[in-house]
Amino acid sequence: MFSHSTEIRVRYGETDQMGFVYYGNYALYYEVGRVEAIRSLGITYKDLEDQGVIMPVVRVDAKYIGPAKYDDLLKITTTINEMPDRFITFNVIITNEEKNVLHKATVTLCFKNADSGLQIRTPPSLIEKLQPYFP
Amino acid sequence: MFSHSTEIRVRYGETDQMGFVYYGNYALYYEVGRVEAIRSLGITYKDLEDQGVIMPVVRVDAKYIGPAKYDDLLKITTTINEMPDRFITFNVIITNEEKNVLHKATVTLCFKNADSGLQIRTPPSLIEKLQPYFP
Amino acid sequence: MFSHSTEIRVRYGETDQMGFVYYGNYALYYEVGRVEAIRSLGITYKDLEDQGVIMPVVRVDAKYIGPAKYDDLLKITTTINEMPDRFITFNVIITNEEKNVLHKATVTLCFKNADSGLQIRTPPSLIEKLQPYFP
Amino acid sequence: MFSHSTEIRVRYGETDQMGFVYYGNYALYYEVGRVEAIRSLGITYKDLEDQGVIMPVVRVDAKYIGPAKYDDLLKITTTINEMPDRFITFNVIITNEEKNVLHKATVTLCFKNADSGLQIRTPPSLIEKLQPYFP
Repeated sequence: MFSHSTEIRVRYGETDQMGFVYYGNYALYYEVGRVEAIRSLGITYKDLEDQGVIMPVVRVDAKYIGPAKYDDLLKITTTINEMPDRFITFNVIITNEEKNVLHKATVTLCFKNADSGLQIRTPPSLIEKLQPYFP
Repeated sequence: MFSHSTEIRVRYGETDQMGFVYYGNYALYYEVGRVEAIRSLGITYKDLEDQGVIMPVVRVDAKYIGPAKYDDLLKITTTINEMPDRFITFNVIITNEEKNVLHKATVTLCFKNADSGLQIRTPPSLIEKLQPYFP
Repeated sequence: MFSHSTEIRVRYGETDQMGFVYYGNYALYYEVGRVEAIRSLGITYKDLEDQGVIMPVVRVDAKYIGPAKYDDLLKITTTINEMPDRFITFNVIITNEEKNVLHKATVTLCFKNADSGLQIRTPPSLIEKLQPYFP
Repeated sequence: MFSHSTEIRVRYGETDQMGFVYYGNYALYYEVGRVEAIRSLGITYKDLEDQGVIMPVVRVDAKYIGPAKYDDLLKITTTINEMPDRFITFNVIITNEEKNVLHKATVTLCFKNADSGLQIRTPPSLIEKLQPYFP
């Protein structure tokens, strides 16, 4: 298991007139969560793209438990529960400063060769970094 | 069953550097789909808000099947399969001009009193409009 | 002079907690305005990209006169006042259904070769379409 | 003169298919810049809203000098050159890690009473915090 947390401050432009974060903007938070999780491993999503790999999202399952509000400092905890192969799944939990769980999501991505568009397995450069967490 | 279709042209600002619609922006498309579906019933989401009802999203389950591209004219088909009560669920299917299914999602919302924040049942004004489709 | 109008319905996700369209989202409206203006000429921005031309924005000057609100049906009027050469400037006026002017902007783009990144003149395919309006 | 800098990491969802930050998304960066500038004074934009004051943007003048790219760590420098009265103007300069200036903007906001919608002068709570910088 590999887990990583990062913080995000809610922007005004991410709220809607209900006064909460617009439901579609959580996708940006998942993205920051997984990007920073990967960076903490010593490799970046940008490195993977530079190696010719893109990672399209194939599935999102999201539960909105409580509203995130403007200027909230959110904690995004991103967990990989199993070694990725043809897909990689990130479990995301978002809490506010009062430690209330506001949101849970499961986000699955695949790996593709940017040129051919063909699906590939997890790049070895990422596997290598994850190996220590899945002994 | 109640079903309604509407069209959306993909904006440049909705793409990302992969060259496809950013995965978080589909939420905007679901929104347009359900708003136009409700409008076609003879009531608007805005009317409901003016009556003091807000409709937060509580669950999204989305499958990304194929990429939507810049300037694609997408068809958003929004279906309500059962009479809403404490929740309302919209099934969304997104196809492109070649009639390829690009995306499927299930989006569930609840109803809340805007002032109290308390969850309520589906407002009678909406029930009335849906009744003919669930005989 | 070349002028074209198109309509846009304000999305919920485009509002912020002030209850109005977030100031950054007008850029999406300018984009739709100029893209539809160009399409009405018989060529598309996508065609230009397929010809290897990209059009980065270099300048925006925007005046926010009145608030656009959720579900407003906005009229975006896009005008080209002079024949483009190294730059193309679009003047945008946004009005609501009550014909109130809500917003005015001047948006200037340049043309670049997508491969080299070098700035180029207006592509002949676009010049040809605009010629009749600048006799 | 009051000046403050903050950093922002470019998100994937903020890029477009040109491979750069979408021109409309700079508005989010100005927002983060001015919000953090105000926070550094010991008051927050949220405090002002809680006091019944909203701050709509009335003017943006933006120059796009070079492209910001995915995963760039941008430095947003926000400067107030004169004591605000009926309006407050923020000058924004955005640089990348190579210290290239990518973007310059001038953003002017007014102050309104949230209930009445009427324009007001700069709230005393903000004036007080700025006073030391404009002796």
